[in-house]
Amino acid sequence: MYAVIFRAVINELDETYAEMAGRMRDQAINKYGCVEFTAVTEGKHEIAISYWDNQDQIKAWKQDPEHRDAQKLGRSKWYKSYQVQVVEVIREYNKSI
Amino acid sequence: MYAVIFRAVINELDETYAEMAGRMRDQAINKYGCVEFTAVTEGKHEIAISYWDNQDQIKAWKQDPEHRDAQKLGRSKWYKSYQVQVVEVIREYNKSI
Repeated sequence: MYAVIFRAVINELDETYAEMAGRMRDQAINKYGCVEFTAVTEGKHEIAISYWDNQDQIKAWKQDPEHRDAQKLGRSKWYKSYQVQVVEVIREYNKSI
Repeated sequence: MYAVIFRAVINELDETYAEMAGRMRDQAINKYGCVEFTAVTEGKHEIAISYWDNQDQIKAWKQDPEHRDAQKLGRSKWYKSYQVQVVEVIREYNKSI
Protein backbone atom coordinates (compact mmCIF):
# COMPACT_ATOMS: atom_id res chain seq x y z
CA MET A 1 0.00 0.00 0.00
CA TYR A 2 1.20 3.48 -0.89
CA ALA A 3 0.05 6.92 0.24
CA VAL A 4 0.45 10.51 -0.87
CA ILE A 5 0.78 12.97 2.01
CA PHE A 6 -0.12 16.52 1.01
CA ARG A 7 0.63 19.21 3.59
CA ALA A 8 -0.12 22.85 2.86
CA VAL A 9 -0.18 26.31 4.35
CA ILE A 10 -3.30 27.97 2.97
CA ASN A 11 -3.15 31.34 1.27
CA GLU A 12 -6.77 31.97 0.34
CA LEU A 13 -9.48 29.48 -0.53
CA ASP A 14 -12.08 30.93 -2.93
CA GLU A 15 -15.48 29.51 -3.88
CA THR A 16 -14.01 27.35 -6.64
CA TYR A 17 -11.79 25.53 -4.14
CA ALA A 18 -14.40 23.36 -2.38
CA GLU A 19 -15.99 22.33 -5.65
CA MET A 20 -12.64 21.51 -7.25
CA ALA A 21 -11.37 19.67 -4.14
CA GLY A 22 -14.51 17.51 -4.07
CA ARG A 23 -14.24 16.74 -7.77
CA MET A 24 -10.54 15.86 -7.49
CA ARG A 25 -11.32 13.50 -4.63
CA ASP A 26 -14.10 11.79 -6.60
CA GLN A 27 -11.91 11.40 -9.67
CA ALA A 28 -9.00 10.00 -7.67
CA ILE A 29 -11.31 7.34 -6.27
CA ASN A 30 -13.56 6.59 -9.25
CA LYS A 31 -11.16 7.04 -12.14
CA TYR A 32 -7.67 6.29 -10.79
CA GLY A 33 -8.17 3.64 -8.11
CA CYS A 34 -7.56 5.67 -4.95
CA VAL A 35 -8.53 3.41 -2.04
CA GLU A 36 -9.11 6.04 0.62
CA PHE A 37 -8.93 9.83 0.84
CA THR A 38 -8.84 11.83 4.06
CA ALA A 39 -8.32 15.56 4.63
CA VAL A 40 -8.20 17.72 7.75
CA THR A 41 -7.90 21.52 7.88
CA GLU A 42 -7.18 23.60 10.98
CA GLY A 43 -6.76 27.34 10.49
CA LYS A 44 -4.19 27.79 7.75
CA HIS A 45 -2.92 24.22 7.88
CA GLU A 46 -4.21 21.39 5.71
CA ILE A 47 -3.21 17.74 5.61
CA ALA A 48 -4.71 15.44 2.97
CA ILE A 49 -3.70 11.80 2.60
CA SER A 50 -4.70 9.52 -0.26
CA TYR A 51 -4.04 5.75 -0.28
CA TRP A 52 -3.23 3.67 -3.35
CA ASP A 53 -2.46 0.08 -4.30
CA ASN A 54 0.48 0.96 -6.55
CA GLN A 55 2.63 3.85 -7.75
CA ASP A 56 1.39 3.71 -11.36
CA GLN A 57 -2.02 4.85 -10.14
CA ILE A 58 -0.40 7.77 -8.31
CA LYS A 59 1.54 8.79 -11.44
CA ALA A 60 -1.56 8.53 -13.64
CA TRP A 61 -3.57 10.65 -11.21
CA LYS A 62 -0.82 13.29 -11.05
CA GLN A 63 -0.98 13.59 -14.88
CA ASP A 64 -4.78 13.89 -15.11
CA PRO A 65 -5.51 17.10 -17.11
CA GLU A 66 -8.08 18.49 -14.68
CA HIS A 67 -5.88 17.58 -11.73
CA ARG A 68 -3.02 19.50 -13.38
CA ASP A 69 -5.30 22.55 -13.62
CA ALA A 70 -6.09 22.14 -9.93
CA GLN A 71 -2.37 21.91 -9.14
CA LYS A 72 -1.80 25.19 -11.02
CA LEU A 73 -4.55 26.93 -9.05
CA GLY A 74 -3.06 25.50 -5.86
CA ARG A 75 0.35 26.93 -6.69
CA SER A 76 -0.85 30.34 -7.90
CA LYS A 77 -3.78 31.01 -5.58
CA TRP A 78 -4.88 28.68 -2.81
CA TYR A 79 -1.62 27.75 -1.09
CA LYS A 80 1.28 29.74 0.33
CA SER A 81 3.40 26.63 0.40
CA TYR A 82 2.92 22.90 0.21
CA GLN A 83 4.78 19.61 0.41
CA VAL A 84 3.93 16.34 -1.30
CA GLN A 85 5.39 13.05 -0.09
CA VAL A 86 4.87 9.67 -1.73
CA VAL A 87 5.29 6.98 0.92
CA GLU A 88 5.05 3.21 1.25
CA VAL A 89 3.15 1.78 4.21
CA ILE A 90 5.46 -0.63 6.07
CA ARG A 91 3.10 -1.65 8.87
CA GLU A 92 -0.07 -0.43 10.54
CA TYR A 93 -2.40 -1.08 13.41
CA ASN A 94 -5.87 0.07 14.35
CA LYS A 95 -8.00 0.47 17.39
CA SER A 96 -11.76 0.67 17.06
CA ILE A 97 -14.27 0.52 19.87
CA MET B 1 13.20 9.06 5.95
CA TYR B 2 10.33 7.40 7.79
CA ALA B 3 7.07 8.77 9.13
CA VAL B 4 4.35 7.71 11.53
CA ILE B 5 0.86 8.70 10.43
CA PHE B 6 -1.61 8.81 13.31
CA ARG B 7 -5.25 9.30 12.36
CA ALA B 8 -7.95 9.40 15.02
CA VAL B 9 -11.62 10.00 15.61
CA ILE B 10 -11.82 11.96 18.85
CA ASN B 11 -14.03 10.83 21.70
CA GLU B 12 -13.45 13.49 24.32
CA LEU B 13 -10.34 15.55 24.99
CA ASP B 14 -10.01 16.57 28.64
CA GLU B 15 -7.67 19.13 30.20
CA THR B 16 -4.83 16.63 30.54
CA TYR B 17 -4.81 16.01 26.79
CA ALA B 18 -3.20 19.26 25.58
CA GLU B 19 -0.51 19.09 28.25
CA MET B 20 0.25 15.43 27.52
CA ALA B 21 0.20 15.95 23.75
CA GLY B 22 2.67 18.82 24.05
CA ARG B 23 4.97 16.81 26.32
CA MET B 24 4.85 13.78 24.02
CA ARG B 25 5.78 15.98 21.07
CA ASP B 26 8.71 17.52 22.97
CA GLN B 27 9.98 14.13 24.09
CA ALA B 28 9.72 12.64 20.60
CA ILE B 29 11.87 15.48 19.28
CA ASN B 30 14.31 16.03 22.16
CA LYS B 31 14.75 12.48 23.46
CA TYR B 32 14.09 10.14 20.53
CA GLY B 33 15.29 12.02 17.46
CA CYS B 34 11.99 12.94 15.81
CA VAL B 35 12.87 15.32 12.97
CA GLU B 36 9.48 16.99 12.53
CA PHE B 37 6.05 16.75 14.13
CA THR B 38 2.86 18.15 12.65
CA ALA B 39 -0.75 17.78 13.82
CA VAL B 40 -4.05 19.10 12.50
CA THR B 41 -7.48 18.71 14.12
CA GLU B 42 -10.84 19.49 12.50
CA GLY B 43 -13.95 18.70 14.47
CA LYS B 44 -13.63 15.09 15.59
CA HIS B 45 -10.83 14.22 13.19
CA GLU B 46 -7.14 14.43 14.01
CA ILE B 47 -4.12 13.69 11.86
CA ALA B 48 -0.64 13.81 13.38
CA ILE B 49 2.50 12.96 11.42
CA SER B 50 5.97 12.54 12.90
CA TYR B 51 9.12 12.16 10.79
CA TRP B 52 12.15 10.04 11.71
CA ASP B 53 15.54 9.09 10.31
CA ASN B 54 15.19 5.38 11.12
CA GLN B 55 12.79 2.78 12.45
CA ASP B 56 14.77 2.10 15.64
CA GLN B 57 13.92 5.61 16.80
CA ILE B 58 10.24 4.94 16.14
CA LYS B 59 10.35 1.69 18.10
CA ALA B 60 12.19 3.31 21.02
CA TRP B 61 9.67 6.14 21.14
CA LYS B 62 6.75 3.71 21.07
CA GLN B 63 8.21 1.95 24.15
CA ASP B 64 8.81 5.13 26.17
CA PRO B 65 7.08 4.64 29.56
CA GLU B 66 5.30 7.99 29.58
CA HIS B 67 4.33 7.58 25.94
CA ARG B 68 2.82 4.17 26.82
CA ASP B 69 0.73 5.87 29.52
CA ALA B 70 -0.42 8.40 26.92
CA GLN B 71 -1.32 5.55 24.54
CA LYS B 72 -3.44 3.97 27.29
CA LEU B 73 -5.28 7.24 27.89
CA GLY B 74 -5.78 7.57 24.15
CA ARG B 75 -7.33 4.11 23.93
CA SER B 76 -9.51 4.40 27.03
CA LYS B 77 -10.53 8.04 26.96
CA TRP B 78 -9.54 10.47 24.23
CA TYR B 79 -10.16 8.52 21.02
CA LYS B 80 -13.11 6.59 19.65
CA SER B 81 -10.85 4.93 17.10
CA TYR B 82 -7.42 5.45 15.64
CA GLN B 83 -5.01 4.09 13.09
CA VAL B 84 -1.23 4.17 13.15
CA GLN B 85 0.82 3.65 9.98
CA VAL B 86 4.58 3.48 9.79
CA VAL B 87 5.66 4.55 6.30
CA GLU B 88 8.84 5.11 4.33
CA VAL B 89 9.15 8.28 2.26
CA ILE B 90 9.94 7.30 -1.35
CA ARG B 91 10.04 10.78 -2.88
CA GLU B 92 8.88 14.30 -2.11
CA TYR B 93 8.62 17.77 -3.55
CA ASN B 94 7.89 21.20 -2.15
CA LYS B 95 6.59 24.52 -3.29
CA SER B 96 7.32 27.63 -1.25
CA ILE B 97 6.70 31.19 -2.30
